[in-house]
Amino acid sequence: MTAEPHPPLQVQAVAQAAREASRRLATTTSEQRVSVLDRLARQLERQGPAILAANAEDVALASEALEASALQRLKLDGPKLAAMVQGVRAVAALPDPLHRVQLRRELDEGLELTRVACPLGVLCVIFESRPDALVQISALALKSGNAVLLKGGSEAHRSNGALLDCIQTALREAGLPETSVQGLPDRAAVAALLQRPDLVDLVIPRGSNAMVQSIQAATRIPVLGHSEGICHLFLDVAADTVMAVALVRDAKLQYPSACNAVETVLIHRGAAARLLPALVADLAPRGVELRGCRACLALVPALLEATEADWDTEYGTPILALKVVADLDEALAHIRAHGSGHTEAIVTEDQAAAERFLAEVDAAGVFHNASTRFADGFRYGFGAEVGISTGRIHARGPVGIEGLLSYRYLLKGHGHRVEDYSGPAARPFRHADLPLDI
Amino acid sequence: MTAEPHPPLQVQAVAQAAREASRRLATTTSEQRVSVLDRLARQLERQGPAILAANAEDVALASEALEASALQRLKLDGPKLAAMVQGVRAVAALPDPLHRVQLRRELDEGLELTRVACPLGVLCVIFESRPDALVQISALALKSGNAVLLKGGSEAHRSNGALLDCIQTALREAGLPETSVQGLPDRAAVAALLQRPDLVDLVIPRGSNAMVQSIQAATRIPVLGHSEGICHLFLDVAADTVMAVALVRDAKLQYPSACNAVETVLIHRGAAARLLPALVADLAPRGVELRGCRACLALVPALLEATEADWDTEYGTPILALKVVADLDEALAHIRAHGSGHTEAIVTEDQAAAERFLAEVDAAGVFHNASTRFADGFRYGFGAEVGISTGRIHARGPVGIEGLLSYRYLLKGHGHRVEDYSGPAARPFRHADLPLDI
Repeated sequence: MTAEPHPPLQVQAVAQAAREASRRLATTTSEQRVSVLDRLARQLERQGPAILAANAEDVALASEALEASALQRLKLDGPKLAAMVQGVRAVAALPDPLHRVQLRRELDEGLELTRVACPLGVLCVIFESRPDALVQISALALKSGNAVLLKGGSEAHRSNGALLDCIQTALREAGLPETSVQGLPDRAAVAALLQRPDLVDLVIPRGSNAMVQSIQAATRIPVLGHSEGICHLFLDVAADTVMAVALVRDAKLQYPSACNAVETVLIHRGAAARLLPALVADLAPRGVELRGCRACLALVPALLEATEADWDTEYGTPILALKVVADLDEALAHIRAHGSGHTEAIVTEDQAAAERFLAEVDAAGVFHNASTRFADGFRYGFGAEVGISTGRIHARGPVGIEGLLSYRYLLKGHGHRVEDYSGPAARPFRHADLPLDI
Repeated sequence: MTAEPHPPLQVQAVAQAAREASRRLATTTSEQRVSVLDRLARQLERQGPAILAANAEDVALASEALEASALQRLKLDGPKLAAMVQGVRAVAALPDPLHRVQLRRELDEGLELTRVACPLGVLCVIFESRPDALVQISALALKSGNAVLLKGGSEAHRSNGALLDCIQTALREAGLPETSVQGLPDRAAVAALLQRPDLVDLVIPRGSNAMVQSIQAATRIPVLGHSEGICHLFLDVAADTVMAVALVRDAKLQYPSACNAVETVLIHRGAAARLLPALVADLAPRGVELRGCRACLALVPALLEATEADWDTEYGTPILALKVVADLDEALAHIRAHGSGHTEAIVTEDQAAAERFLAEVDAAGVFHNASTRFADGFRYGFGAEVGISTGRIHARGPVGIEGLLSYRYLLKGHGHRVEDYSGPAARPFRHADLPLDI
């Protein structure tokens, strides 16, 4: 992670070294990959003081330019470092994702097809502020045999450099190429790589909506992630009042800047007089700015009036839009028009309404009587999270380590020719599935 | 499939109608989707004479402009029509791909997560010449609950119109929107759609390398397919002569224009004096043009000399490049440098060499003692094939109907809040996997 700008040729050399490292990683044993992660955990512990010192320099330099929340994400301390080490050990302990047989089929006598998991190849990861993201994503990539090109925020330059040193030391000690995880110097290097589908297999941006959108717009390489998280809670006519209030509070306030926090609450007209005052009474004293539609204002005149723009805004702060809808149909239509396909929830005691909502909403997560905040790889039990995808291709919703995998078909024969299975006297295929566990 | 050019707004309306149809399809039962396909099969039978008459017009008009092979692909006849009908019935008989539970996990008491298969949404399919591709891809899309926008070759305009009529009649009769499968009028409509990731979820080009490459270069929407198929057979020092000759013949000649046909045969130096004359003796009389490296020419002077360009050429015709390599390492390096990640094969009786080849070659298909021509969805037993992908994301190699699927996470709770699972007194998750088959 040097600061000099790299000319395109140098970026290409870096990426080609990553490609070569990825070939080496693809044929490593589980033990070799676990050994790198064990060494990384120890290295992070040993280098703890140096990492914190580098981070303190970053924080001191950035303290005027950054907002308090960004500074908080940038700052490392003992507990964060310990969590980082624990995270690396947790990834090391995951079952080996590589070389797993996903399909095993006898096409005919002596002709056996298997489908085997393999790494994607070279990942390009772009993240902002949080240096811990560097370690987390590198651990996931190495566990799954992928090489990584990393670009962190410039404000975390020293912290990232210290962490990358630990990773490369661990790789070297384990006898694997240091070029398995490399830093990219600047945005120009990222921009150059985004034009090279031959050098990079997957782009993973972790950061603001604007950053993710600009990357999606700039490349034909597959991008894993999401830009917007406009999530809704629909309070049905048959919603329990206490539960509805508790779920709105959790979905809005438990962590307002998360992508799975709620932005708009839709309230069934038949329950608005019951639910809206209860919501206001709970949320207003907690400092939530409430913006309502006309029908809301008619019930609670003290609310601010929402504009059309509110239905399409991801606040990321304790602001909540409220809208009265005629029925479930109008709620579904509003979600179709304004949702971002991330996570949508209904609160109701009416099983039929819940089933319809679960069947009809097209989003990565569709919930009944649960907070949208559950949409998360750790809460889903994936052990570790690569990111949350709102795309439909490859991986959707919270993505665990399997999002970093592809597969290969291996076919073992004894001189089998297609000619014998073609034409009028074609030999038939057997197509018998075999047990996977050998 | 009208001939008037559509302004962008009209294309948008067509795509939005497809999006609405896709929402309807996503909630259909298996019976409804099977019913459309049954009606389509009957409709194709009933309209057989009209379809063949429309096709005869296309063929008559194109007979001067098209090459014999393209004309052959364009031409429909009784047997081709019968195969088309049989194909639709085979797709109808596949197990229902939708609503399948892929994961079921109790996150905690009363909080159950399921992952359920769902359609991708709207597919844009671009194909050349072969009108049967229209019916095949539409059947796969409808079976999996996806809407389709189709653009066929202009030379098949009348044939495609007649087939599309059958599909829309079947949809209407089954009470599903006709807009589930729509034709696109011209290339401008395709070009406009390729700029709209919001309207199209997956692009499937079926045709020449040049066509696929131009589409890949023009869009950020995921593209399922492959442009090049440069496949190799490596004849190891321990290759059986009779098997090697038979596999090269099959891989080159059984269907030379297929993407999984072999283009370059690599021969281990230690076996070249044995294998090369046998290959030439078998292939030359069958009209194969053989182009060899210097080392090949030293053994068989009658060969044409290959140039560097030959190693990167997909002939699609009975031309074969031959190259002597020092060993397995050089063969692997040549495949890395020149292969297109489609299908690569080794012929050897040496188990260790085979295992190394199978472990190290990075391609969708890696074969031992079998013809590259087996890389095919039907031969793999997928029942039907969407296409063959050389990408690593989403689907790789021959892609069956599962390539047209995504999934959604459904979470059912009883008022569960993330707050209770956070902080120092966090309640632990249970994360207990439950059986899938209920």
